[in-house]
Amino acid sequence: MELIDGNHIAAAIAAELKAEIAAAPGRKPCIALVRVGEDPASVSYVKKKEKTAAEIGAVSRVILPPVTISQAELFALIDSLNADATVDGILVQSPLPKHIDEVAVFRRVAPEKDVDGFNTVNLGKVAQEDETGFVACTPAGIMELLRRSGVDLKGKHVVVLGRSLIVGKPVALLALQKRAGANGTVTICHSGTANLPVFTRSADVLIAAIGRPEFVTADMVKPGAVVIDVGINRVADASKKTGYKLVGDVHFESVAPLCAKITPVPGGVGPMTVAMLLQNTVKAWRGRGVR
Amino acid sequence: MELIDGNHIAAAIAAELKAEIAAAPGRKPCIALVRVGEDPASVSYVKKKEKTAAEIGAVSRVILPPVTISQAELFALIDSLNADATVDGILVQSPLPKHIDEVAVFRRVAPEKDVDGFNTVNLGKVAQEDETGFVACTPAGIMELLRRSGVDLKGKHVVVLGRSLIVGKPVALLALQKRAGANGTVTICHSGTANLPVFTRSADVLIAAIGRPEFVTADMVKPGAVVIDVGINRVADASKKTGYKLVGDVHFESVAPLCAKITPVPGGVGPMTVAMLLQNTVKAWRGRGVR
Repeated sequence: MELIDGNHIAAAIAAELKAEIAAAPGRKPCIALVRVGEDPASVSYVKKKEKTAAEIGAVSRVILPPVTISQAELFALIDSLNADATVDGILVQSPLPKHIDEVAVFRRVAPEKDVDGFNTVNLGKVAQEDETGFVACTPAGIMELLRRSGVDLKGKHVVVLGRSLIVGKPVALLALQKRAGANGTVTICHSGTANLPVFTRSADVLIAAIGRPEFVTADMVKPGAVVIDVGINRVADASKKTGYKLVGDVHFESVAPLCAKITPVPGGVGPMTVAMLLQNTVKAWRGRGVR
Repeated sequence: MELIDGNHIAAAIAAELKAEIAAAPGRKPCIALVRVGEDPASVSYVKKKEKTAAEIGAVSRVILPPVTISQAELFALIDSLNADATVDGILVQSPLPKHIDEVAVFRRVAPEKDVDGFNTVNLGKVAQEDETGFVACTPAGIMELLRRSGVDLKGKHVVVLGRSLIVGKPVALLALQKRAGANGTVTICHSGTANLPVFTRSADVLIAAIGRPEFVTADMVKPGAVVIDVGINRVADASKKTGYKLVGDVHFESVAPLCAKITPVPGGVGPMTVAMLLQNTVKAWRGRGVR
Protein backbone atom coordinates (compact mmCIF):
# COMPACT_ATOMS: atom_id res chain seq x y z
CA MET A 1 0.00 0.00 0.00
CA GLU A 2 1.23 3.43 -0.96
CA LEU A 3 0.03 6.59 0.70
CA ILE A 4 -0.82 9.42 -1.70
CA ASP A 5 0.67 12.40 0.10
CA GLY A 6 -1.46 15.47 -0.66
CA ASN A 7 0.74 17.77 1.38
CA HIS A 8 3.80 16.76 -0.60
CA ILE A 9 2.07 17.06 -3.99
CA ALA A 10 0.46 20.39 -3.08
CA ALA A 11 3.87 21.71 -2.01
CA ALA A 12 5.37 20.62 -5.34
CA ILE A 13 2.66 22.50 -7.22
CA ALA A 14 3.14 25.58 -5.06
CA ALA A 15 6.87 25.47 -5.79
CA GLU A 16 6.21 25.31 -9.54
CA LEU A 17 3.82 28.27 -9.36
CA LYS A 18 6.29 30.21 -7.26
CA ALA A 19 9.04 29.68 -9.81
CA GLU A 20 6.77 30.77 -12.66
CA ILE A 21 5.71 33.93 -10.84
CA ALA A 22 9.25 34.79 -9.81
CA ALA A 23 10.43 34.47 -13.42
CA ALA A 24 7.74 36.79 -14.80
CA PRO A 25 8.42 40.50 -14.95
CA GLY A 26 5.79 43.06 -13.94
CA ARG A 27 2.55 42.67 -12.10
CA LYS A 28 2.13 39.55 -9.95
CA PRO A 29 -1.06 37.45 -9.96
CA CYS A 30 -3.72 38.80 -7.64
CA ILE A 31 -6.61 36.95 -6.04
CA ALA A 32 -9.47 38.74 -4.31
CA LEU A 33 -10.69 36.75 -1.31
CA VAL A 34 -14.17 37.82 -0.26
CA ARG A 35 -15.30 36.55 3.13
CA VAL A 36 -18.72 37.61 4.37
CA GLY A 37 -19.08 37.57 8.16
CA GLU A 38 -17.03 35.71 10.74
CA ASP A 39 -17.85 32.03 10.31
CA PRO A 40 -14.89 30.38 12.12
CA ALA A 41 -14.22 27.76 9.43
CA SER A 42 -14.31 30.46 6.74
CA VAL A 43 -11.90 32.62 8.74
CA SER A 44 -9.44 29.74 8.87
CA TYR A 45 -9.88 28.77 5.19
CA VAL A 46 -9.38 32.31 3.94
CA LYS A 47 -6.34 32.73 6.18
CA LYS A 48 -4.83 29.57 4.69
CA LYS A 49 -5.49 30.81 1.14
CA GLU A 50 -3.95 34.20 1.94
CA LYS A 51 -0.89 32.57 3.47
CA THR A 52 -0.33 30.18 0.56
CA ALA A 53 -0.78 33.00 -1.96
CA ALA A 54 1.92 34.98 -0.16
CA GLU A 55 4.23 31.95 -0.12
CA ILE A 56 4.14 31.61 -3.90
CA GLY A 57 4.57 35.32 -4.51
CA ALA A 58 0.99 36.12 -5.47
CA VAL A 59 -0.93 39.08 -4.15
CA SER A 60 -4.13 38.55 -2.25
CA ARG A 61 -6.68 41.20 -1.50
CA VAL A 62 -8.88 40.20 1.42
CA ILE A 63 -12.28 41.87 1.52
CA LEU A 64 -14.42 41.37 4.60
CA PRO A 65 -17.99 42.61 4.18
CA PRO A 66 -20.17 42.37 7.29
CA VAL A 67 -22.68 39.52 7.60
CA THR A 68 -25.43 42.11 7.09
CA ILE A 69 -24.33 42.95 3.52
CA SER A 70 -27.26 42.79 1.09
CA GLN A 71 -27.17 40.69 -2.04
CA ALA A 72 -27.24 43.84 -4.17
CA GLU A 73 -24.25 45.25 -2.29
CA LEU A 74 -22.36 41.98 -2.69
CA PHE A 75 -23.16 41.99 -6.42
CA ALA A 76 -21.83 45.55 -6.66
CA LEU A 77 -18.64 44.48 -4.91
CA ILE A 78 -18.21 41.54 -7.30
CA ASP A 79 -18.91 43.79 -10.29
CA SER A 80 -16.16 46.14 -9.18
CA LEU A 81 -13.71 43.24 -8.83
CA ASN A 82 -14.78 41.89 -12.23
CA ALA A 83 -13.96 45.31 -13.71
CA ASP A 84 -10.67 45.74 -11.83
CA ALA A 85 -7.77 45.05 -14.22
CA THR A 86 -5.41 44.34 -11.31
CA VAL A 87 -7.53 41.42 -10.05
CA ASP A 88 -7.00 38.06 -11.79
CA GLY A 89 -9.12 35.76 -9.67
CA ILE A 90 -12.09 36.17 -7.36
CA LEU A 91 -13.06 33.78 -4.61
CA VAL A 92 -16.23 34.26 -2.60
CA GLN A 93 -15.89 32.04 0.43
CA SER A 94 -18.79 29.67 1.02
CA PRO A 95 -21.06 29.40 3.02
CA LEU A 96 -22.77 32.76 2.60
CA PRO A 97 -25.44 34.08 4.96
CA LYS A 98 -28.92 32.66 4.33
CA HIS A 99 -30.36 35.88 2.88
CA ILE A 100 -27.95 35.64 -0.05
CA ASP A 101 -28.45 33.34 -3.05
CA GLU A 102 -25.13 31.54 -3.28
CA VAL A 103 -25.56 30.24 -6.84
CA ALA A 104 -26.48 33.74 -8.04
CA VAL A 105 -23.30 35.07 -6.43
CA PHE A 106 -21.15 32.42 -8.09
CA ARG A 107 -22.76 33.34 -11.42
CA ARG A 108 -22.01 37.00 -10.87
CA VAL A 109 -18.26 36.36 -10.81
CA ALA A 110 -16.95 36.85 -14.37
CA PRO A 111 -16.20 33.39 -15.85
CA GLU A 112 -12.64 34.49 -16.71
CA LYS A 113 -11.98 35.36 -13.04
CA ASP A 114 -13.91 32.45 -11.56
CA VAL A 115 -10.91 30.63 -10.08
CA ASP A 116 -13.24 28.65 -7.82
CA GLY A 117 -14.83 27.11 -10.92
CA PHE A 118 -18.39 27.47 -9.62
CA ASN A 119 -19.77 29.65 -12.42
CA THR A 120 -22.25 27.80 -14.65
CA VAL A 121 -20.14 28.54 -17.72
CA ASN A 122 -17.07 26.91 -16.21
CA LEU A 123 -19.08 23.88 -15.20
CA GLY A 124 -20.38 23.60 -18.77
CA LYS A 125 -16.83 23.87 -20.07
CA VAL A 126 -15.83 20.82 -18.01
CA ALA A 127 -18.49 18.86 -19.88
CA GLN A 128 -17.31 20.38 -23.18
CA GLU A 129 -13.68 19.46 -22.41
CA ASP A 130 -12.91 23.11 -23.08
CA GLU A 131 -9.62 23.93 -21.40
CA THR A 132 -10.19 27.68 -21.44
CA GLY A 133 -12.40 27.27 -18.37
CA PHE A 134 -11.63 26.78 -14.70
CA VAL A 135 -12.19 23.46 -13.00
CA ALA A 136 -13.46 23.59 -9.42
CA CYS A 137 -10.63 23.08 -6.94
CA THR A 138 -11.57 19.78 -5.31
CA PRO A 139 -12.18 17.78 -8.51
CA ALA A 140 -9.14 19.41 -10.12
CA GLY A 141 -7.11 18.43 -7.06
CA ILE A 142 -8.28 14.82 -7.26
CA MET A 143 -7.23 14.56 -10.91
CA GLU A 144 -3.87 16.11 -10.12
CA LEU A 145 -3.29 13.70 -7.21
CA LEU A 146 -4.00 10.77 -9.52
CA ARG A 147 -1.82 12.13 -12.30
CA ARG A 148 1.14 12.85 -10.05
CA SER A 149 0.79 9.44 -8.42
CA GLY A 150 1.06 7.74 -11.79
CA VAL A 151 -2.55 6.50 -11.86
CA ASP A 152 -3.82 6.39 -15.44
CA LEU A 153 -7.61 5.99 -15.61
CA LYS A 154 -7.59 4.63 -19.15
CA GLY A 155 -9.54 1.38 -19.29
CA LYS A 156 -10.18 1.57 -15.54
CA HIS A 157 -13.53 1.53 -13.80
CA VAL A 158 -13.80 4.70 -11.76
CA VAL A 159 -16.59 4.68 -9.20
CA VAL A 160 -17.59 8.03 -7.74
CA LEU A 161 -19.53 7.90 -4.51
CA GLY A 162 -21.61 11.08 -4.28
CA ARG A 163 -23.24 13.27 -6.95
CA SER A 164 -22.58 16.74 -5.56
CA LEU A 165 -22.12 19.66 -7.86
CA ILE A 166 -18.80 20.56 -6.25
CA VAL A 167 -17.18 17.12 -6.33
CA GLY A 168 -19.08 14.11 -7.64
CA LYS A 169 -20.38 15.39 -10.94
CA PRO A 170 -17.34 17.37 -12.07
CA VAL A 171 -14.86 14.67 -11.10
CA ALA A 172 -16.97 12.14 -13.03
CA LEU A 173 -16.89 14.39 -16.10
CA LEU A 174 -13.12 14.85 -15.74
CA ALA A 175 -12.40 11.14 -15.31
CA LEU A 176 -14.40 10.52 -18.48
CA GLN A 177 -12.62 13.07 -20.67
CA LYS A 178 -10.88 11.99 -23.84
CA ARG A 179 -7.40 12.98 -22.74
CA ALA A 180 -4.21 11.45 -21.41
CA GLY A 181 -4.63 10.19 -17.86
CA ALA A 182 -8.42 10.18 -18.08
CA ASN A 183 -10.59 8.02 -20.39
CA GLY A 184 -12.05 6.11 -17.47
CA THR A 185 -15.32 4.22 -17.50
CA VAL A 186 -17.23 6.08 -14.83
CA THR A 187 -20.04 5.09 -12.49
CA ILE A 188 -21.69 7.62 -10.19
CA CYS A 189 -23.32 6.17 -7.09
CA HIS A 190 -25.21 8.05 -4.40
CA SER A 191 -27.66 7.77 -1.52
CA GLY A 192 -30.27 6.28 -3.86
CA THR A 193 -28.03 3.52 -5.24
CA ALA A 194 -29.26 -0.03 -4.73
CA ASN A 195 -26.62 -2.70 -4.00
CA LEU A 196 -23.93 -0.10 -3.45
CA PRO A 197 -21.17 -2.56 -2.41
CA VAL A 198 -21.51 -4.35 -5.76
CA PHE A 199 -20.51 -1.11 -7.48
CA THR A 200 -17.77 -0.05 -5.07
CA ARG A 201 -16.24 -3.53 -5.15
CA SER A 202 -15.94 -3.33 -8.93
CA ALA A 203 -14.00 -0.06 -8.76
CA ASP A 204 -10.38 0.08 -9.88
CA VAL A 205 -10.41 3.66 -8.61
CA LEU A 206 -12.89 4.61 -5.90
CA ILE A 207 -13.56 8.28 -5.17
CA ALA A 208 -15.53 8.69 -1.96
CA ALA A 209 -17.29 12.03 -1.64
CA ILE A 210 -20.45 11.23 0.21
CA GLY A 211 -19.88 13.12 3.47
CA ARG A 212 -20.47 10.18 5.81
CA PRO A 213 -17.72 9.39 8.31
CA GLU A 214 -15.89 6.13 7.64
CA PHE A 215 -18.72 4.93 5.40
CA VAL A 216 -16.55 2.87 3.06
CA THR A 217 -15.46 -0.30 4.81
CA ALA A 218 -13.08 -3.08 3.78
CA ASP A 219 -15.83 -5.31 2.41
CA MET A 220 -16.74 -2.58 -0.08
CA VAL A 221 -13.31 -2.31 -1.69
CA LYS A 222 -11.61 -4.51 -4.26
CA PRO A 223 -8.07 -5.51 -3.25
CA GLY A 224 -5.57 -3.50 -5.26
CA ALA A 225 -7.89 -0.53 -5.77
CA VAL A 226 -6.84 3.11 -5.66
CA VAL A 227 -8.95 4.97 -3.10
CA ILE A 228 -9.39 8.75 -3.01
CA ASP A 229 -11.08 9.93 0.16
CA VAL A 230 -12.68 13.35 -0.27
CA GLY A 231 -14.55 13.34 3.04
CA ILE A 232 -13.60 15.61 5.92
CA ASN A 233 -15.87 14.75 8.83
CA ARG A 234 -15.58 15.76 12.46
CA VAL A 235 -16.28 12.97 14.91
CA ALA A 236 -16.19 13.25 18.70
CA ASP A 237 -12.89 12.21 20.26
CA ALA A 238 -12.44 12.80 23.97
CA SER A 239 -8.69 12.15 23.72
CA LYS A 240 -8.23 15.31 21.60
CA LYS A 241 -7.94 18.79 23.04
CA THR A 242 -10.54 20.03 20.55
CA GLY A 243 -12.90 17.21 21.47
CA TYR A 244 -13.02 15.89 17.91
CA LYS A 245 -10.91 14.29 15.25
CA LEU A 246 -11.12 14.48 11.46
CA VAL A 247 -11.98 11.34 9.54
CA GLY A 248 -12.72 10.74 5.88
CA ASP A 249 -15.54 8.91 4.15
CA VAL A 250 -13.35 5.80 4.20
CA HIS A 251 -12.62 3.60 7.20
CA PHE A 252 -8.91 4.07 6.70
CA GLU A 253 -7.65 1.47 9.16
CA SER A 254 -9.41 -1.46 7.55
CA VAL A 255 -9.39 -0.26 3.93
CA ALA A 256 -5.80 0.99 3.60
CA PRO A 257 -4.13 -2.44 3.83
CA LEU A 258 -6.21 -3.61 0.84
CA CYS A 259 -5.36 -0.70 -1.44
CA ALA A 260 -2.68 -0.17 -4.04
CA LYS A 261 -2.82 3.53 -3.16
CA ILE A 262 -4.95 5.60 -0.81
CA THR A 263 -5.20 9.22 0.34
CA PRO A 264 -5.17 9.88 4.08
CA VAL A 265 -7.50 12.34 5.88
CA PRO A 266 -6.21 14.85 6.68
CA GLY A 267 -3.31 15.31 4.28
CA GLY A 268 -4.85 13.87 1.11
CA VAL A 269 -7.32 15.80 -1.02
CA GLY A 270 -7.60 18.68 1.49
CA PRO A 271 -4.25 20.38 0.84
CA MET A 272 -4.83 20.12 -2.92
CA THR A 273 -7.79 22.51 -2.98
CA VAL A 274 -5.74 25.56 -2.05
CA ALA A 275 -3.01 24.53 -4.50
CA MET A 276 -5.60 24.26 -7.28
CA LEU A 277 -7.11 27.64 -6.36
CA LEU A 278 -3.72 29.23 -6.83
CA GLN A 279 -3.04 27.23 -9.98
CA ASN A 280 -6.31 28.59 -11.37
CA THR A 281 -5.34 32.11 -10.31
CA VAL A 282 -2.01 31.84 -12.09
CA LYS A 283 -3.83 30.48 -15.14
CA ALA A 284 -6.18 33.49 -15.08
CA TRP A 285 -3.22 35.83 -14.76
CA ARG A 286 -1.41 34.15 -17.65
CA GLY A 287 -4.58 34.23 -19.74
CA ARG A 288 -5.11 37.93 -19.19
CA GLY A 289 -1.61 38.54 -20.48
CA VAL A 290 -1.18 41.46 -18.06
CA ARG A 291 2.15 41.11 -16.41
CA MET B 1 -41.58 -7.03 -24.92
CA GLU B 2 -43.15 -3.61 -25.31
CA LEU B 3 -42.21 -1.22 -28.07
CA ILE B 4 -41.66 2.39 -26.94
CA ASP B 5 -43.42 4.30 -29.70
CA GLY B 6 -41.62 7.60 -30.21
CA ASN B 7 -44.00 8.75 -32.92
CA HIS B 8 -46.97 8.28 -30.63
CA ILE B 9 -45.33 10.00 -27.66
CA ALA B 10 -44.04 12.88 -29.79
CA ALA B 11 -47.53 13.36 -31.20
CA ALA B 12 -48.99 13.47 -27.68
CA ILE B 13 -46.50 16.17 -26.70
CA ALA B 14 -47.25 18.15 -29.86
CA ALA B 15 -50.97 17.97 -29.05
CA GLU B 16 -50.33 19.30 -25.54
CA LEU B 17 -48.25 22.17 -26.87
CA LYS B 18 -50.86 22.95 -29.52
CA ALA B 19 -53.59 23.15 -26.86
CA GLU B 20 -51.48 25.44 -24.70
CA ILE B 21 -50.71 27.76 -27.59
CA ALA B 22 -54.31 27.82 -28.79
CA ALA B 23 -55.50 28.78 -25.30
CA ALA B 24 -53.06 31.68 -24.95
CA PRO B 25 -54.11 35.10 -26.18
CA GLY B 26 -51.73 37.32 -28.13
CA ARG B 27 -48.43 36.58 -29.79
CA LYS B 28 -47.68 32.95 -30.62
CA PRO B 29 -44.31 31.32 -29.87
CA CYS B 30 -41.75 31.95 -32.59
CA ILE B 31 -38.67 29.93 -33.45
CA ALA B 32 -35.97 31.20 -35.79
CA LEU B 33 -34.51 28.37 -37.86
CA VAL B 34 -31.13 29.30 -39.30
CA ARG B 35 -29.83 26.98 -41.99
CA VAL B 36 -26.51 27.82 -43.60
CA GLY B 37 -26.08 26.38 -47.09
CA GLU B 38 -27.88 23.50 -48.76
CA ASP B 39 -26.73 20.35 -46.99
CA PRO B 40 -29.47 17.85 -47.96
CA ALA B 41 -29.91 16.37 -44.47
CA SER B 42 -30.14 19.89 -43.01
CA VAL B 43 -32.73 20.88 -45.61
CA SER B 44 -34.89 17.95 -44.60
CA TYR B 45 -34.41 18.48 -40.82
CA VAL B 46 -35.29 22.16 -41.01
CA LYS B 47 -38.32 21.40 -43.17
CA LYS B 48 -39.53 18.91 -40.57
CA LYS B 49 -39.06 21.47 -37.75
CA GLU B 50 -40.90 24.11 -39.73
CA LYS B 51 -43.77 21.75 -40.47
CA THR B 52 -44.15 20.60 -36.87
CA ALA B 53 -44.01 24.19 -35.61
CA ALA B 54 -46.88 25.06 -37.96
CA GLU B 55 -48.86 22.04 -36.79
CA ILE B 56 -48.81 23.15 -33.17
CA GLY B 57 -49.61 26.76 -34.01
CA ALA B 58 -46.14 28.20 -33.49
CA VAL B 59 -44.50 30.63 -35.88
CA SER B 60 -41.23 29.74 -37.51
CA ARG B 61 -38.96 32.14 -39.27
CA VAL B 62 -36.61 30.34 -41.64
CA ILE B 63 -33.40 32.18 -42.42
CA LEU B 64 -31.16 30.78 -45.14
CA PRO B 65 -27.75 32.43 -45.30
CA PRO B 66 -25.50 31.25 -48.14
CA VAL B 67 -22.71 28.77 -47.41
CA THR B 68 -20.25 31.62 -47.95
CA ILE B 69 -21.48 33.62 -44.94
CA SER B 70 -18.60 34.67 -42.70
CA GLN B 71 -18.52 33.90 -38.99
CA ALA B 72 -18.81 37.61 -38.22
CA GLU B 73 -21.90 37.91 -40.42
CA LEU B 74 -23.46 34.86 -38.79
CA PHE B 75 -22.70 36.36 -35.35
CA ALA B 76 -24.40 39.58 -36.43
CA LEU B 77 -27.44 37.62 -37.58
CA ILE B 78 -27.62 35.78 -34.25
CA ASP B 79 -27.20 39.04 -32.35
CA SER B 80 -30.14 40.53 -34.20
CA LEU B 81 -32.28 37.48 -33.39
CA ASN B 82 -31.15 37.63 -29.75
CA ALA B 83 -32.32 41.25 -29.64
CA ASP B 84 -35.61 40.62 -31.48
CA ALA B 85 -38.45 40.58 -28.95
CA THR B 86 -40.68 38.61 -31.32
CA VAL B 87 -38.27 35.66 -31.44
CA ASP B 88 -38.49 33.16 -28.55
CA GLY B 89 -36.13 30.45 -29.67
CA ILE B 90 -33.17 30.25 -32.05
CA LEU B 91 -31.91 27.11 -33.73
CA VAL B 92 -28.78 27.11 -35.84
CA GLN B 93 -28.84 23.88 -37.80
CA SER B 94 -25.70 21.76 -37.51
CA PRO B 95 -23.39 20.99 -39.31
CA LEU B 96 -22.03 24.42 -40.22
CA PRO B 97 -19.45 25.00 -42.98
CA LYS B 98 -15.88 24.27 -41.94
CA HIS B 99 -14.79 27.93 -41.82
CA ILE B 100 -17.21 28.59 -38.96
CA ASP B 101 -16.52 27.65 -35.33
CA GLU B 102 -19.66 25.76 -34.37
CA VAL B 103 -19.16 25.93 -30.59
CA ALA B 104 -18.62 29.69 -30.81
CA VAL B 105 -21.88 29.99 -32.75
CA PHE B 106 -23.79 27.96 -30.15
CA ARG B 107 -22.35 30.21 -27.44
CA ARG B 108 -23.43 33.30 -29.33
CA VAL B 109 -27.11 32.33 -29.06
CA ALA B 110 -28.51 33.99 -25.93
CA PRO B 111 -28.95 31.29 -23.23
CA GLU B 112 -32.61 32.27 -22.77
CA LYS B 113 -33.31 31.63 -26.48
CA ASP B 114 -31.06 28.58 -26.80
CA VAL B 115 -33.83 26.04 -27.42
CA ASP B 116 -31.27 23.61 -28.81
CA GLY B 117 -29.59 23.51 -25.39
CA PHE B 118 -26.06 23.71 -26.81
CA ASN B 119 -24.96 26.90 -25.07
CA THR B 120 -22.35 26.28 -22.35
CA VAL B 121 -24.59 27.92 -19.75
CA ASN B 122 -27.45 25.54 -20.47
CA LEU B 123 -25.13 22.57 -20.29
CA GLY B 124 -23.89 23.80 -16.90
CA LYS B 125 -27.47 24.18 -15.74
CA VAL B 126 -28.13 20.51 -16.48
CA ALA B 127 -25.32 19.67 -14.05
CA GLN B 128 -26.70 22.19 -11.56
CA GLU B 129 -30.20 20.71 -11.85
CA ASP B 130 -31.36 24.25 -12.60
CA GLU B 131 -34.68 24.04 -14.39
CA THR B 132 -34.47 27.56 -15.79
CA GLY B 133 -32.17 26.24 -18.51
CA PHE B 134 -32.82 24.33 -21.71
CA VAL B 135 -31.92 20.68 -22.03
CA ALA B 136 -30.60 19.57 -25.44
CA CYS B 137 -33.33 17.89 -27.46
CA THR B 138 -32.04 14.32 -27.74
CA PRO B 139 -31.29 13.75 -24.04
CA ALA B 140 -34.50 15.57 -23.09
CA GLY B 141 -36.38 13.33 -25.50
CA ILE B 142 -34.87 10.18 -23.99
CA MET B 143 -35.95 11.21 -20.49
CA GLU B 144 -39.43 12.03 -21.75
CA LEU B 145 -39.71 8.66 -23.51
CA LEU B 146 -38.77 6.90 -20.28
CA ARG B 147 -41.14 8.99 -18.17
CA ARG B 148 -44.10 8.51 -20.48
CA SER B 149 -43.39 4.78 -20.72
CA GLY B 150 -43.56 4.48 -16.94
CA VAL B 151 -39.86 3.72 -16.47
CA ASP B 152 -38.66 5.10 -13.14
CA LEU B 153 -34.85 5.16 -12.91
CA LYS B 154 -34.78 5.25 -9.12
CA GLY B 155 -32.56 2.50 -7.79
CA LYS B 156 -31.85 1.32 -11.33
CA HIS B 157 -28.49 0.93 -13.01
CA VAL B 158 -28.47 3.11 -16.10
CA VAL B 159 -25.65 2.39 -18.51
CA VAL B 160 -24.96 5.01 -21.15
CA LEU B 161 -22.95 3.86 -24.14
CA GLY B 162 -21.19 6.91 -25.58
CA ARG B 163 -19.84 10.08 -23.99
CA SER B 164 -20.78 12.67 -26.57
CA LEU B 165 -21.56 16.21 -25.54
CA ILE B 166 -24.92 16.10 -27.29
CA VAL B 167 -26.22 12.82 -25.89
CA GLY B 168 -24.06 10.71 -23.59
CA LYS B 169 -22.95 13.27 -21.04
CA PRO B 170 -26.19 15.24 -20.70
CA VAL B 171 -28.38 12.15 -20.51
CA ALA B 172 -26.08 10.74 -17.82
CA LEU B 173 -26.42 13.97 -15.82
CA LEU B 174 -30.21 13.89 -16.26
CA ALA B 175 -30.57 10.25 -15.23
CA LEU B 176 -28.58 11.06 -12.10
CA GLN B 177 -30.64 14.07 -11.01
CA LYS B 178 -32.31 14.10 -7.63
CA ARG B 179 -35.84 14.25 -8.95
CA ALA B 180 -38.86 12.04 -9.54
CA GLY B 181 -38.25 9.58 -12.36
CA ALA B 182 -34.47 10.02 -12.24
CA ASN B 183 -32.16 9.12 -9.31
CA GLY B 184 -30.46 6.41 -11.30
CA THR B 185 -27.02 4.98 -10.63
CA VAL B 186 -25.26 5.87 -13.85
CA THR B 187 -22.32 4.34 -15.69
CA ILE B 188 -20.89 5.96 -18.80
CA CYS B 189 -19.07 3.61 -21.16
CA HIS B 190 -17.31 4.50 -24.40
CA SER B 191 -14.80 3.40 -26.99
CA GLY B 192 -12.10 3.15 -24.31
CA THR B 193 -14.09 0.93 -21.95
CA ALA B 194 -12.52 -2.42 -21.10
CA ASN B 195 -14.88 -5.40 -20.73
CA LEU B 196 -17.80 -3.48 -22.17
CA PRO B 197 -20.27 -6.41 -22.13
CA VAL B 198 -19.83 -6.75 -18.35
CA PHE B 199 -21.17 -3.21 -17.99
CA THR B 200 -23.94 -3.42 -20.55
CA ARG B 201 -25.14 -6.74 -19.11
CA SER B 202 -25.52 -5.15 -15.70
CA ALA B 203 -27.77 -2.39 -17.08
CA ASP B 204 -31.39 -2.20 -16.02
CA VAL B 205 -31.69 0.62 -18.54
CA LEU B 206 -29.28 0.72 -21.47
CA ILE B 207 -28.95 3.88 -23.54
CA ALA B 208 -26.98 3.23 -26.71
CA ALA B 209 -25.54 6.37 -28.31
CA ILE B 210 -22.28 5.22 -29.77
CA GLY B 211 -22.98 5.67 -33.50
CA ARG B 212 -22.06 2.14 -34.57
CA PRO B 213 -24.67 0.19 -36.52
CA GLU B 214 -26.20 -2.74 -34.61
CA PHE B 215 -23.30 -2.71 -32.16
CA VAL B 216 -25.30 -3.94 -29.16
CA THR B 217 -26.05 -7.62 -29.55
CA ALA B 218 -28.17 -10.01 -27.49
CA ASP B 219 -25.23 -11.28 -25.43
CA MET B 220 -24.63 -7.72 -24.20
CA VAL B 221 -28.10 -7.19 -22.74
CA LYS B 222 -29.63 -8.40 -19.49
CA PRO B 223 -33.02 -10.08 -19.97
CA GLY B 224 -35.75 -7.70 -18.83
CA ALA B 225 -33.74 -4.56 -19.52
CA VAL B 226 -35.14 -1.35 -20.99
CA VAL B 227 -33.17 -0.40 -24.10
CA ILE B 228 -33.11 3.08 -25.64
CA ASP B 229 -31.48 3.14 -29.05
CA VAL B 230 -30.23 6.60 -29.99
CA GLY B 231 -28.31 5.53 -33.08
CA ILE B 232 -29.43 6.43 -36.58
CA ASN B 233 -27.04 4.74 -39.00
CA ARG B 234 -27.36 4.25 -42.74
CA VAL B 235 -26.37 0.83 -43.96
CA ALA B 236 -26.42 -0.35 -47.56
CA ASP B 237 -29.57 -2.21 -48.54
CA ALA B 238 -30.02 -3.12 -52.22
CA SER B 239 -33.69 -3.99 -51.62
CA LYS B 240 -34.48 -0.31 -50.85
CA LYS B 241 -35.11 2.29 -53.50
CA THR B 242 -32.70 4.64 -51.72
CA GLY B 243 -30.05 1.93 -51.57
CA TYR B 244 -29.83 2.07 -47.79
CA LYS B 245 -31.82 1.41 -44.66
CA LEU B 246 -31.68 3.04 -41.24
CA VAL B 247 -30.56 0.96 -38.30
CA GLY B 248 -29.83 1.86 -34.70
CA ASP B 249 -26.87 1.11 -32.46
CA VAL B 250 -28.75 -1.98 -31.26
CA HIS B 251 -29.21 -5.20 -33.20
CA PHE B 252 -32.97 -4.95 -32.84
CA GLU B 253 -33.92 -8.40 -34.10
CA SER B 254 -31.91 -10.31 -31.54
CA VAL B 255 -32.12 -7.82 -28.65
CA ALA B 256 -35.81 -6.90 -28.73
CA PRO B 257 -37.13 -10.32 -27.61
CA LEU B 258 -35.00 -10.05 -24.44
CA CYS B 259 -36.18 -6.59 -23.41
CA ALA B 260 -38.94 -5.37 -21.16
CA LYS B 261 -39.14 -2.29 -23.40
CA ILE B 262 -37.18 -1.07 -26.39
CA THR B 263 -37.27 1.84 -28.84
CA PRO B 264 -37.29 1.03 -32.55
CA VAL B 265 -35.19 2.81 -35.19
CA PRO B 266 -36.68 4.72 -36.87
CA GLY B 267 -39.66 5.79 -34.75
CA GLY B 268 -38.06 5.80 -31.31
CA VAL B 269 -35.82 8.61 -30.12
CA GLY B 270 -35.79 10.34 -33.52
CA PRO B 271 -39.27 11.85 -33.51
CA MET B 272 -38.75 13.08 -29.95
CA THR B 273 -36.04 15.59 -30.85
CA VAL B 274 -38.35 17.86 -32.83
CA ALA B 275 -41.01 17.56 -30.10
CA MET B 276 -38.46 18.62 -27.50
CA LEU B 277 -37.26 21.52 -29.65
CA LEU B 278 -40.81 22.84 -29.75
CA GLN B 279 -41.33 22.12 -26.07
CA ASN B 280 -38.24 24.22 -25.36
CA THR B 281 -39.53 26.96 -27.65
CA VAL B 282 -42.86 27.06 -25.84
CA LYS B 283 -40.96 27.15 -22.52
CA ALA B 284 -38.91 30.11 -23.76
CA TRP B 285 -42.08 31.85 -24.89
CA ARG B 286 -43.76 31.22 -21.54
CA GLY B 287 -40.66 32.38 -19.70
CA ARG B 288 -40.47 35.64 -21.60
CA GLY B 289 -44.02 36.36 -20.56
CA VAL B 290 -44.66 38.10 -23.89
CA ARG B 291 -47.91 36.86 -25.25
